[in-house]
Formats: sequence, structure tokens, C-alpha cells
Amino acid sequence: MRDASTICAISTPPGSGGMAVIRLSGPEALPVAESVFRSHARGVSLSGEPARTLHVGWITDGSREIDEVVVALFRGPHSYTGEDVVEISCHGSLYIQQRILELLISRGARIAAPGEFTQRAFLNGRMDLSQAEAVADLIASTNEAAHRIALHQMRGGFSAEIRHLREQLLRFTALVELELDFSEEDVEFADRVALKALTVEIEALLSRLAGSFRLGNAIKNGIPVVIAGETNVGKSTLLNALLNEEKAIVSDIHGTTRDVIEDVVNIHGTAFRFFDTAGIRETHDAIETMGIERTFSKLRQAEIVLLVVDLTSSWTAVLKLIEQIRGHIDRQHLIITANKADRQLAETAAALKALPLRENEDLVFLSAKSRENLGELIVRMQETLSANKVGAHEVIVSNLRHYEALVHAREAILRVQEGLEQQIPGDLLAQDIRECLWYLGSITGDISEDEVLGYIFKNFCIGK
Amino acid sequence: MRDASTICAISTPPGSGGMAVIRLSGPEALPVAESVFRSHARGVSLSGEPARTLHVGWITDGSREIDEVVVALFRGPHSYTGEDVVEISCHGSLYIQQRILELLISRGARIAAPGEFTQRAFLNGRMDLSQAEAVADLIASTNEAAHRIALHQMRGGFSAEIRHLREQLLRFTALVELELDFSEEDVEFADRVALKALTVEIEALLSRLAGSFRLGNAIKNGIPVVIAGETNVGKSTLLNALLNEEKAIVSDIHGTTRDVIEDVVNIHGTAFRFFDTAGIRETHDAIETMGIERTFSKLRQAEIVLLVVDLTSSWTAVLKLIEQIRGHIDRQHLIITANKADRQLAETAAALKALPLRENEDLVFLSAKSRENLGELIVRMQETLSANKVGAHEVIVSNLRHYEALVHAREAILRVQEGLEQQIPGDLLAQDIRECLWYLGSITGDISEDEVLGYIFKNFCIGK
Repeated sequence: MRDASTICAISTPPGSGGMAVIRLSGPEALPVAESVFRSHARGVSLSGEPARTLHVGWITDGSREIDEVVVALFRGPHSYTGEDVVEISCHGSLYIQQRILELLISRGARIAAPGEFTQRAFLNGRMDLSQAEAVADLIASTNEAAHRIALHQMRGGFSAEIRHLREQLLRFTALVELELDFSEEDVEFADRVALKALTVEIEALLSRLAGSFRLGNAIKNGIPVVIAGETNVGKSTLLNALLNEEKAIVSDIHGTTRDVIEDVVNIHGTAFRFFDTAGIRETHDAIETMGIERTFSKLRQAEIVLLVVDLTSSWTAVLKLIEQIRGHIDRQHLIITANKADRQLAETAAALKALPLRENEDLVFLSAKSRENLGELIVRMQETLSANKVGAHEVIVSNLRHYEALVHAREAILRVQEGLEQQIPGDLLAQDIRECLWYLGSITGDISEDEVLGYIFKNFCIGK
Repeated sequence: MRDASTICAISTPPGSGGMAVIRLSGPEALPVAESVFRSHARGVSLSGEPARTLHVGWITDGSREIDEVVVALFRGPHSYTGEDVVEISCHGSLYIQQRILELLISRGARIAAPGEFTQRAFLNGRMDLSQAEAVADLIASTNEAAHRIALHQMRGGFSAEIRHLREQLLRFTALVELELDFSEEDVEFADRVALKALTVEIEALLSRLAGSFRLGNAIKNGIPVVIAGETNVGKSTLLNALLNEEKAIVSDIHGTTRDVIEDVVNIHGTAFRFFDTAGIRETHDAIETMGIERTFSKLRQAEIVLLVVDLTSSWTAVLKLIEQIRGHIDRQHLIITANKADRQLAETAAALKALPLRENEDLVFLSAKSRENLGELIVRMQETLSANKVGAHEVIVSNLRHYEALVHAREAILRVQEGLEQQIPGDLLAQDIRECLWYLGSITGDISEDEVLGYIFKNFCIGK
């Protein structure tokens, strides 16, 4: 599995800038770097220098200088990859970056595959698989909550929980398998009542972890917010007001169907993914009806529904719309956003204020146009699935692969539970336990099939 | 002029990547970095560590970890800026880069202006002005020739020539000014004949340097090549064949009038800037005539004119076109590119081969469609103003500011020459000499007005 090649890549973001860093790792990292580097200090040869030192000098192809650089030395096993690592900080010209990379390749290094530095860190035991995956999440994080989850995972918080689960299961399985060895004697070493209690405990933990994925995924990719309402009630004005709330990273999302307008914006450290929808109104037009149907189906994918109602409309119309939306959502947080508060009909406002709210519903009066009370709406939105709900030490699963492994592990443990109730033989129990262990192990890489690794590291950027 | 603030900036290219580097420089660089860094090694405090060492640890805002980083320490005066410098290598997430930058600012650093690190290097005597400018050129270089010129300049090659000129002039001026002190006694210390010879020598050198700007500018911005010819002779096919010759950096040029198609492409280490033009043909259409006029006027801005003629046309038509183009160009290198060699009319080909070529003219037979003989055309183009003409130790001026200073310096020295001939008084001579010195000094920064500095460094990228 391991290869003895020395890899290199540009580790800094693509493009030109003040400086760029080219990273080398592998058994030949020092000799390769040495063959292209001439220190300003006389008689300095990189391989004789201590670890974690910096050296200023020229990168040269033998006949001609390419750049004046700083070289950073790290020695395995105390390096990122666990191997010898050299980092070359050069001027950030595209031409120079490319030339140095070509030069390193001509001296025997090969270009690194995406994520290969981190893959080596994993293979050399510097981190487990879920920590390695957290590195990619950390790099991709664009908001505080996503950053916090990734950092916690990179520090091994998630791995510790999984390891704890595995240890409990291994204890369990040891007892069951001991029983198997003596099966003809009909001995029962494992206390089946205690075992049952343990599976309940494990199942609860797996459920909690798998359940956290909804939050984790929302935090990572933005909490989905659907803005719904009749036509001309100020939905677009509200969306624009929210998008302008913070001069934040507003990104286009690749690979999503754009049947509705979609924007991701960080508001006070939490990413929200906004969907504007077609206005809801009674219509006999077939195409418009389809648009409205799409709005209703979008509601179910949301975490938050901002239902914009118009305070200058009649109470009957407003109430009818609220009931209609209530009929199309279940667990979503519904924020009834009463717009045009500055010009409201007294009767409508009064009736709305008197409306009994259900659990998971909020009511905010505001004016999208004048931004009056916009802050309150944002507070309500943040309360739904906010970053603040993520405790510093709580594990939140944000990786689909982990989520799927947890779901499979939970299915297996439920089969164990069922088996215990039905008093099935120990060897059948053991099979389900092993399956559960396998899924848990796949998260941290305690089992490590090539395809699992390939799947994980191909999504990294080159140079990490 | 100098300020005692500590500056910080993201020095790597903008965006996310495997890693990013945040640079700090100034008297408080170490304390500021120390206030946010917690080393993995116990008891390590950055300010107690030796220069040019690397430290692994956490960046923390006091209550929460932001990232696991590597910190590189440099101490003034042996650093890029001449001050204490700390470089923080963090994970290349946009969020993390921003958070660390904010944190450093909250601890007393301020965001660096574009080029401010290099400006400090200049102010602290680590490099002269033309070397500092070369850093920006080096970062912007996208081809071998531009890179070579910038690197030579950064290493001080240009400065050395300028310094040599200044020394000669200073010797000259000392003698003239000595004369002034004794002017009432009508003494003549300076040997006017020797002085004259010196001005001739200096003028020749200034001319050569200023003259190199044509090459330097072409190398930096791409050698302008105009492709001309009748309609339907394969101009576009030829352009595409050339553009595809190398999978090279092909860039759009900002801020140019795009009345003609313009592409910059690196071919074997030299950047060419191609202009495709409207086809030349006899017409009575007013708009088309304007297009053809534009073609002719474009010819004069070229260094190379590729005149594409069609070997399947009659010799009379081909000859007429060649004569027409010859009438519109002067110093340009004209490459008569005889296209459709695979289907040529024997008579036309024979007559063309027999055509007497002038100096600065070439003739290449090729087929743009099949790419046959394309290589020969490229060789001819490269011979015109090629990177290979740039000797390793030859100074090529590629900076417009330097060019203008050289032109002004030369004007001043010509006035000195004239003054010597007309035997004007020494004090008038001295004034012109001082002007010449001033212009030469402005190149290396031996005079350094705020406005000159501001002008230079504002074109840098932030973080350098």
C-alpha cells in the first residue's frame, strides 16, 4: 500500500500572489531539495541541518537561478506526513511555481495526488481517517460553525467517541465469542441482561450521532431557508435585505438545480442557504400551478420556512395562507414574517398577534424595505439550528460517509438487540456485532480498504 | 517616513488551498504572534526562540483554538523586510485566513498596504528601488524571458549599471563644481575634452539602456504580432494553430481596445501578443474600408507582421499585396507566410521563391490547416526579439518608469554635451548634470520622494 516515492505539489491556493509554497514529502525529500538549493550561508547542506529550521538561498537548475526562496525543513516522524518534509517558499509567480515544480520532478519527485500528503499522514499513523477527513472539511469551512465542527473532528473528538463505542462492542463480542467456543457445553458467559442494556446504550449513542448529521450537514452546507408567500408581498426585498446584512461570503453553489434562486450567506457566523420561490396564489394557469407545486415541495427540504405575509392584506387572506403552509410542512421551523409593518392594517395585525402559535413557530413583525426589525428575524433564524447549539465538546457529524456508516452500524446493533430478545444463537449475534464493528472501524480507518481511502482522498485539493 | 507599526497580510494567492501564509512584520511582530500562539512544545515562548526556526502549535483567541499552524521566525535585520518577521502557515480555508488576520489586528498589528513589506525592505536598506520593483515584476512574470529580466534586476544588475553611471557623473560634477568655487579666478580644473568624451560615453550607455526598453517591454507584455492578409487566406486558421502550439498561459488582456482580436500566448518561453485583423481587399464599402485602414495602422504598432498570402492565388495578386504591406511598415519584421503550401499553384510558388527579400524580411511556406512547417514560422518569430537575445548578464529595461527616467537623464546629458561645445559657464553645466543625476537616482531610490514611492508600491499585491 505505501509507496516509497517522494511527492511534491504547490500547497498554496492556485494563482499568483506575494508568495507560494511548494511542499515535498518522502524519503528523498531532503536529497531532492538539496539538489536544487544553494544556501546563502556557505557550506550549508540541507541534509546536515537540524529539523524545523529555515534556510534562505537560491533555487537553481544548475545553470541558472530560478528564484530566491526560503526552505523549511521538517524531519519524519515529527512532520505533517510523518516523513521528511521540505517546504519551499518562493515568489508567487505562476511561472516560478511551475518551474520549481518541474525542476523537483526532474530530480525524482513526482506530483502528489489530491490529498496525498494527508493520506500519508494517515498511513503513517499521524492521524486517523476521520481526522484526515476533517482536514478537508477544515479547508473548505467558510463559517464559524463549520470550522468548529471540523476542528473538533480534526482534534480527534469524533474518533474518541467512535473508539469508545468500539471498545464497548469489543468487550461484548469477546464474551459472546467465548460462549461460542464452549457452545456445545451450553455455557452462557455473557450476561444477556447486561448485554441488552449495553446494546440499548450503544444504539442510543449511534442514534444521537447519526441524528446530529442533520445539523452538521446544515452547518457545513448552509441551513436551508425557504422564503414563501404570495406574490408582491416583499419576498425578494426581504431576501436582498438578508443577503446584505453582512458583507459576507456569498457563493454560488455548483451542481445544484437552480429551479429556485439559491444563495448562501454567512450571517453572524452561521451559513444560511436561501431559496426564493414562486409566489403562491390561486391560479388556473398550468405553468404557474407547477411553480407553486414546486414551492410546496421545496418547503419540505427546508429547515426554516420564512412565510412572508402582507400586513396590508385582509386577515382572511393571511390566515388562509398560513393554514395552507402549515398543511405542507412538518418538522420545519415556521417563521411567520409579517411584512409592511409600517403600513399595516390594524385589524390584520391585531388578529395575527392573537393567532395561537404552535411549537416550532415564530412570529416577527418587520418592514423588509426599511429593514426595521430585521435583526429580530435573524435572531429567530439562528435559534433554529444555530452554531451556538454546537457545544465546544459535542460531536456533530457533518460527513455523509460517516453518517452512512453510523446508520449501518445502528441497523446492525438493532439486529443484535432483536437477536438477544429472540435468544438466537451466539454465532449469529457475533456476525451482526462484527458488522457493526466494521462500520465503526471504517469511520476511523481501523479497517482500511483501498477503495475507502481512494474515495476519501480524491476530494482533497492537491498539495494537502 | 518610517512608521513603527507592525503590519500583517495574507501573502499567498487569494482563495482556499492546502495552506496559506500570513505574514507579520515590525517591531511588535514577535509579541503579537506570541499573544495568539500556543506551542505544542511546553514552555516555548516565541520571543525566546532563535531566528530561522519553525514552531508547531495552535493559534488561539484565548478562549478557542482557531487552527493548528506552523510559525516561522525571522529576526531583523536578517529578514526580508529588515525587521522582525513572523510567518504563520495555516490551513488554507478562507474562514481561517480571515479569522487569524482579524485576530492579529485585534492584538495590535494593522493590515499592510500593497507592497508594504517590500517597501519596508527598501526603507531598511535591504534592497534599492529598482530591485524592489523587480520583485513585483518577478511575481507578475509569466514567461521565461520576463522572469529572467526581473530576476537579473532583482539581483541588482540594473542597479549596478545605474550606480556606475552615477559615479562617473559625480566625478564629473565634482570637477565642474570645484571650478565654480574658483570661478572668479578663471581656473579650469575639468579637462573639457575629457569631459566631452565622458558625456559621449554616458549618453551612449543611456541610449542603449533606453533602447532596450522596446525589447524589455515586448518581453514583459508579449511581442506584438499582427496577422494580416486578404480575406479567406487562412489567417484565423494560422492564429489558432499558433495558439494551440503550446498548452500555455493564454490570457485575456484587460483594458485594451478590442477592435482587433488579441491573445497572449507563451511559445517556447517567449510571450507573443497576437492581433488578428480584418481581411485586406479592394472594397467600396465604407465600413469595410475603415476596418482595412485600422489594419494598416495596427501594422505600425507591431514588432512582427505575419503577412499571410495564399499560394492558390495568382502571383500578380500576391505580389500586389506584398508591395502594399511593405508600403505600410518600416522597422517591423515582415514574415511572408505562404499558406496552403499543400495545394500551391506552381507558378505562384516559384515566383514567390524568386522574390528578392529585403533586410528584416523572411519567407516561410506552410500549411496552417495541417500545421506543416509551423515550427519554422515559430523559429523565425523567435529570432525577431527573442528571449535568447537576452544575455544572462545584459541589462534590459522593462519598466516604464525606468525608461522615462533614462530618457530624461539622456536629454540632460545631451544638454551638457551641447553646453560643453558652446563653452557655457560651469554653473549652467552643473545644473544639467544635477538633473541627470536626479533622474538616475530616482531609478534606484537614492532620491526618494514620497510620491515616487507611493507610485511604485501601490501596484504591488497585498502581502508582499
